[in-house]
Amino acid sequence: MTPDQTPDAGATRTEPSVSASHLRGIVPPVITPFHADGEVDTASLARVVEHLVGAGVHGVFALGSSGEVAYLGREQRSVVLDTVVRTVAGRVPVLAGAIDLTARRVLEQVDDAVGAGVDGVVTCAPVYARNDRAEIADHFRAIAAGSPVPVYAYDIPVRVGTKLDAAMVVALGSEGVLAGVKDSSGDDVGFRRLVAANAAAGAPLSVLTGHEVVVDGMLLLGADGVVPGLGNVDPGAYVRMWDLAQAGDWEQVRPEQDRLAALFEIVFQASGRSGDAAGVGAFKVAMHALGLLDAPTMAPPVGPFDADTVARITGIVRAAGLREVART
Amino acid sequence: MTPDQTPDAGATRTEPSVSASHLRGIVPPVITPFHADGEVDTASLARVVEHLVGAGVHGVFALGSSGEVAYLGREQRSVVLDTVVRTVAGRVPVLAGAIDLTARRVLEQVDDAVGAGVDGVVTCAPVYARNDRAEIADHFRAIAAGSPVPVYAYDIPVRVGTKLDAAMVVALGSEGVLAGVKDSSGDDVGFRRLVAANAAAGAPLSVLTGHEVVVDGMLLLGADGVVPGLGNVDPGAYVRMWDLAQAGDWEQVRPEQDRLAALFEIVFQASGRSGDAAGVGAFKVAMHALGLLDAPTMAPPVGPFDADTVARITGIVRAAGLREVART
Amino acid sequence: MTPDQTPDAGATRTEPSVSASHLRGIVPPVITPFHADGEVDTASLARVVEHLVGAGVHGVFALGSSGEVAYLGREQRSVVLDTVVRTVAGRVPVLAGAIDLTARRVLEQVDDAVGAGVDGVVTCAPVYARNDRAEIADHFRAIAAGSPVPVYAYDIPVRVGTKLDAAMVVALGSEGVLAGVKDSSGDDVGFRRLVAANAAAGAPLSVLTGHEVVVDGMLLLGADGVVPGLGNVDPGAYVRMWDLAQAGDWEQVRPEQDRLAALFEIVFQASGRSGDAAGVGAFKVAMHALGLLDAPTMAPPVGPFDADTVARITGIVRAAGLREVART
Amino acid sequence: MTPDQTPDAGATRTEPSVSASHLRGIVPPVITPFHADGEVDTASLARVVEHLVGAGVHGVFALGSSGEVAYLGREQRSVVLDTVVRTVAGRVPVLAGAIDLTARRVLEQVDDAVGAGVDGVVTCAPVYARNDRAEIADHFRAIAAGSPVPVYAYDIPVRVGTKLDAAMVVALGSEGVLAGVKDSSGDDVGFRRLVAANAAAGAPLSVLTGHEVVVDGMLLLGADGVVPGLGNVDPGAYVRMWDLAQAGDWEQVRPEQDRLAALFEIVFQASGRSGDAAGVGAFKVAMHALGLLDAPTMAPPVGPFDADTVARITGIVRAAGLREVART
Repeated sequence: MTPDQTPDAGATRTEPSVSASHLRGIVPPVITPFHADGEVDTASLARVVEHLVGAGVHGVFALGSSGEVAYLGREQRSVVLDTVVRTVAGRVPVLAGAIDLTARRVLEQVDDAVGAGVDGVVTCAPVYARNDRAEIADHFRAIAAGSPVPVYAYDIPVRVGTKLDAAMVVALGSEGVLAGVKDSSGDDVGFRRLVAANAAAGAPLSVLTGHEVVVDGMLLLGADGVVPGLGNVDPGAYVRMWDLAQAGDWEQVRPEQDRLAALFEIVFQASGRSGDAAGVGAFKVAMHALGLLDAPTMAPPVGPFDADTVARITGIVRAAGLREVART
Repeated sequence: MTPDQTPDAGATRTEPSVSASHLRGIVPPVITPFHADGEVDTASLARVVEHLVGAGVHGVFALGSSGEVAYLGREQRSVVLDTVVRTVAGRVPVLAGAIDLTARRVLEQVDDAVGAGVDGVVTCAPVYARNDRAEIADHFRAIAAGSPVPVYAYDIPVRVGTKLDAAMVVALGSEGVLAGVKDSSGDDVGFRRLVAANAAAGAPLSVLTGHEVVVDGMLLLGADGVVPGLGNVDPGAYVRMWDLAQAGDWEQVRPEQDRLAALFEIVFQASGRSGDAAGVGAFKVAMHALGLLDAPTMAPPVGPFDADTVARITGIVRAAGLREVART
Repeated sequence: MTPDQTPDAGATRTEPSVSASHLRGIVPPVITPFHADGEVDTASLARVVEHLVGAGVHGVFALGSSGEVAYLGREQRSVVLDTVVRTVAGRVPVLAGAIDLTARRVLEQVDDAVGAGVDGVVTCAPVYARNDRAEIADHFRAIAAGSPVPVYAYDIPVRVGTKLDAAMVVALGSEGVLAGVKDSSGDDVGFRRLVAANAAAGAPLSVLTGHEVVVDGMLLLGADGVVPGLGNVDPGAYVRMWDLAQAGDWEQVRPEQDRLAALFEIVFQASGRSGDAAGVGAFKVAMHALGLLDAPTMAPPVGPFDADTVARITGIVRAAGLREVART
Repeated sequence: MTPDQTPDAGATRTEPSVSASHLRGIVPPVITPFHADGEVDTASLARVVEHLVGAGVHGVFALGSSGEVAYLGREQRSVVLDTVVRTVAGRVPVLAGAIDLTARRVLEQVDDAVGAGVDGVVTCAPVYARNDRAEIADHFRAIAAGSPVPVYAYDIPVRVGTKLDAAMVVALGSEGVLAGVKDSSGDDVGFRRLVAANAAAGAPLSVLTGHEVVVDGMLLLGADGVVPGLGNVDPGAYVRMWDLAQAGDWEQVRPEQDRLAALFEIVFQASGRSGDAAGVGAFKVAMHALGLLDAPTMAPPVGPFDADTVARITGIVRAAGLREVART
């Protein structure tokens, strides 16, 4: 489906049931499909977005790490956001990553994203720069001051080199600077402390986990939502897990999570490849196998997997019982 | 020496319901109390052990990081193990840390520990040495070959510099080298993968988490047990959480864990102090306040906290509603 | 635009004695002065550049880490390059940092820099992205393919998270991808191996060290040049050290370096401040004290030093016997 | 026991020209040869020590990282020290590594080493324990208080996880706690600051570098000596470099260092092997090729190299023009 074929865009636009200023639920970080020449494959992108929204996700997050945002030039980022916003057509909130070195550069991207019609932006601590806690807080304050839409902090030390301090982000929530946090730090103790500190402050933040294989435990301890990269491959399972958790049916949450954890093994198949290749590359191979993508192409300089790796990944996908999506 | 040869365990000795070769349940890492001169306070140590066993824990682990094992000389380690083994008197399995640089040195400590009557030993990847995966596997094989009691691997990258590979430890379990793993890596994704790989291999390992504030989620995903440092302070709550989890009553597990997570804030009060001071020091201040220890003394060179820090910690302990233990 | 087309360089323009395609000598990373409102102070910047060129440096490097490039928006970067190119007026080569996440984004900055008339660009391994060695090599190949001017690799693991492999950069030199390397890795063993590998390959690269306090040893082992942040404060001393080293007068190089190492203590005075504050902030305070800058303002969110820190820094500057520059 | 009480050093014993309380010159970290069964090969060890002393080194350091100290049990350490002390026979000072987790354990090793007749001990910051700066200083104070021989600090963050603070070690030198520092941190800026701080304090410390390929620069900047692992292979070249540096003949120091740097490439040949295997293993293969060792056996669990790796290493050794030593 191409963007302009989205049936319910335009006049039928509905109000999302979840607000971008306090997200709850499943908000997958949308991958970015590419043509062989490295340009954005908008038809596949629209198909992915439709697949996500159709599965009942509560929001979508474009231009995140799973969206290979680091590799995209300004024009490409614009194409991605236009396609996502047009396809979503207001059915759920659209967040956009504004990932750059420091606040002034980030704000250049926020301007572009807001112009494209997104409902919120996601940004991280300074990259490349070497700042302390007070400077990092002012970094977020500067971004929020220049952003007309809610700002989410993205805590991803493995890429940024900085772990966001829980007390700081909660304070920034209370100030109205941050609307939420996406935690991809892998620090489970820190995550629980963040949830507790946020609750103690009156819950100014929407606290989202990015760890797709421990969602059961994170929901049990009080996460507001999930930003699962694997949700590109199987959004429906995350939505089911969310609904079961809301109903307190933890004994049924567990097998859903176990099945997703088994599926997540796809990201460990490309041994000897880079972190970016192994993870997002596996999602793309799986989505290609399911008919969601025309090709599993990664952004240069990340090359394709060998045939054995592709076979192992597709074997895991088939074992998970996922149904192929008919390409339109 | 086998446990039933322990001379002073005598007639009252009972068979533990949990075997050291496949631990399940709550197994706190016992702290080591000190007199002001830096020697082991055996009276307080016996009081702590009795408190733990009385609360229903399923095993005890002496000479772990929480036991300040790194700071103890050979004679001190012997005093600790003699006291713990004598006090436990066979009611539950006793594990002992054998923490040293490499296998040959570790085995010198295993000899001492087995002589003291412990039921299993806990050891980590090589320290100071710089080894690869194959060498680390052989390290554990050499230790197991020289140990008459079951061997548990202790995964604690923050101290050792190495994250144990899940596939490797499960393979070592299937070989009969390892009886289990205590995971203090803080890598929740890795932990779930370890639990899944272990299950797929027929569960050769007892998989224990060392993360005391996410026990709810770790039990939900299938952990066999918990080694909670905070269990020195409030063992009963961990036993209750274990029992509720066994009964599938996750909605009641959560508030127990939330209360323990609030209590765990004691370890974040000593700002500007070292990792060893802040964590174990906080446990000791709390246990002193509860009447479990004669003094909160740490092993040199770790000094005491200032009065404000002590006041904050005891305030948190009081807020948690813990009851003082009468000193005998 | 090639340098000799710069309109206002005009008749006085001279041919640099050192080519941007194989730099040798002292090439300071030019700091970026700011007004109180955070905008670039072009008058102070021109004064600094004139001071450097007047001292006999062999090139200048704008928009490096010392130039706070991470904090500058697109318009600010343009102002800096215009000012530097105009002031240098062809007397020495001008390099510009093109620091961004990956190749496509970097090339957007290369376009701007080349448009401003620089003679070469400096860029680093991918930032935020997680790539392997082959991907990193292709990253540099993509940048070189899109750059009409020579490309220098900037090896700065503390900011980027990746140490550039010596064999890889030498191979890229032989391919014509890289003209040189600025090594700020602090890995002296790696630096000597790089110099040796480069020599063995016929010296395709200009190998420059960024470590301002071990220049004596690095020149002795064969470095082609130096990119000293401290050279903003005392460019003449670096030029003297270079000339003495060229003459083989190592016994006189040493006291020059010892004096500069004593001066470099200015960067260790702002205890408790961030890496970016302490280092560049100290250069700016020193340069303000010497009359080179109107103000020692840092880019937001980095705030000023307290008065005691400023006093310690200026005391060290005075002790070094540096002469104040008359502001024009 | 003081050195002149060593019974079998006997009448031939000479007074070392360099004191263990302020070492200067070349002090190689002696490797530990093994028989195939993993026990110490004392005949080869004596041959190595004689080779070193015969080449004119100014001291020897047994039981360091190059001596595979981490892998040695108590009895093996005793055999090593007895052999080294007996072979040296007082001709130069003998240092011994006392490498363990914390002070109390280290002192158990100091007792053994002093009993074996060594002239000084070398120890590092706490290992496995997590201490702050003040605790680390007290750690060294406790060791010095219990040691009858001079104590050297060994700064090796890659194994210990802690970089020793220059101001702290100089203060400990002024207190009489430390006699010197062996710096294997690879932090050249830190090393120059240490040398400068030591000089400013009246040179209480002997400051030694462990970096065998940048000795020229380190001597130029004022290092008191060198602890080169590669000195096991070619001690004579290090002694020549030292003598040339003392004479100020830096233009001749450089080619000696360049030749040693080319020889040092042996440690980069065992690709895919662990850090301990690649480095010390390469020294042993080279020494075996030169007739210094009966076998290149490493301590278990470190296995041998494949034939190609051995061939590459011996090729580099031959290219360096080293002469085979006749085995006695």
